[in-house]
Amino acid sequence: MSDTLEQLTEILEQRRSADPAHSYVASLHHKGLNKILEKIGEEATETILAAKDAQTGVETHRQAVIAETADLWFHSLVMLSHLGIAHDDVLNELARRFGVSGLDEKAARSAD
Amino acid sequence: MSDTLEQLTEILEQRRSADPAHSYVASLHHKGLNKILEKIGEEATETILAAKDAQTGVETHRQAVIAETADLWFHSLVMLSHLGIAHDDVLNELARRFGVSGLDEKAARSAD
Amino acid sequence: MSDTLEQLTEILEQRRSADPAHSYVASLHHKGLNKILEKIGEEATETILAAKDAQTGVETHRQAVIAETADLWFHSLVMLSHLGIAHDDVLNELARRFGVSGLDEKAARSAD
Amino acid sequence: MSDTLEQLTEILEQRRSADPAHSYVASLHHKGLNKILEKIGEEATETILAAKDAQTGVETHRQAVIAETADLWFHSLVMLSHLGIAHDDVLNELARRFGVSGLDEKAARSAD
Repeated sequence: MSDTLEQLTEILEQRRSADPAHSYVASLHHKGLNKILEKIGEEATETILAAKDAQTGVETHRQAVIAETADLWFHSLVMLSHLGIAHDDVLNELARRFGVSGLDEKAARSAD
Repeated sequence: MSDTLEQLTEILEQRRSADPAHSYVASLHHKGLNKILEKIGEEATETILAAKDAQTGVETHRQAVIAETADLWFHSLVMLSHLGIAHDDVLNELARRFGVSGLDEKAARSAD
Repeated sequence: MSDTLEQLTEILEQRRSADPAHSYVASLHHKGLNKILEKIGEEATETILAAKDAQTGVETHRQAVIAETADLWFHSLVMLSHLGIAHDDVLNELARRFGVSGLDEKAARSAD
Repeated sequence: MSDTLEQLTEILEQRRSADPAHSYVASLHHKGLNKILEKIGEEATETILAAKDAQTGVETHRQAVIAETADLWFHSLVMLSHLGIAHDDVLNELARRFGVSGLDEKAARSAD
């Protein structure tokens, strides 16, 4: 599981230079930053709506939250790739804030 | 690096039941789902603005994209925790869509 | 000019009960509140992106700000209609906050 | 009622050059476009959340939709002012799309 983001990032880099007619990732890069950011705004809204509906506890709404959050994270990764920013930089920033890191077992243990 | 999200999720669970006066995470849960979703909308907007400014290539704007994306992912994780949804479900959904998984080396290789 | 919102509101009410296959307004009501709110999130994002681009002073970007803001206000009016809220209630709220009203010349003058 | 937006626009222009320490409008202009656009994203999200809650029909949630939509329109007007765009341009765009205008009675009648 732990390598999902890393593997996904590799795939996103490969598809970046694919034919925009056949790859959604390539088509996003081809359309440019505004299109990618429109998708982030769109998926953030859809995540919010799904989360409100999920308050009712209905299972289909829980699945929608998972799908919309996946869409939001996916388009965030495409944005980072488009701007030449490594997703590791974001994870490192989160690790720094919370005093954890895959490289820092002491911090990780003390957080247990 | 690979375990950052997992470690962060554990910390978020621990802090959920902390004193809202001393923990930002606890205060978000205490204020409820709308407050958490407001933050997702807010951080999505700030990510979009930072990304537009980063087009100029100025280093401070690149750092802002990293910080805002971290904020967006962080509040997404708090939302998932609030709704009782595992962040693994989102990563699994992404892995499923792209045919990769930390547990499924064959799929990962075929994606190369 | 002053009656544009009022006339638009009347048209929106007429089209609400039209055939969803032929009226965009009717199709929004038919799809329901989530679809209308998705559009508000989408148009807010597009307004933000157009405004950032308009900072450069290029005329086409200024036209885009006008078009996207029109989209945002239009979908806000559809949302109000869908929830059975008069757009006058929003204008009255704004008038109240700023001490002005088309019906209250004294307040309008004192605000000068 | 019909002149509310016009009167509000005049007030916004007056306050634009006020002391940022005493006028919220002046403080928004002073902080700049990003701050104004952050508010648009924020108020769009709060409008969406209020609208979802208003589906239950509870009166306080209806009032929240009115207040949040007022916030959204208000910050849109500040954005237009900041970019030197007349709010009339947005209303004219809406009138053009729907074939109505306060100055064009024939169009208004034919839309009935």
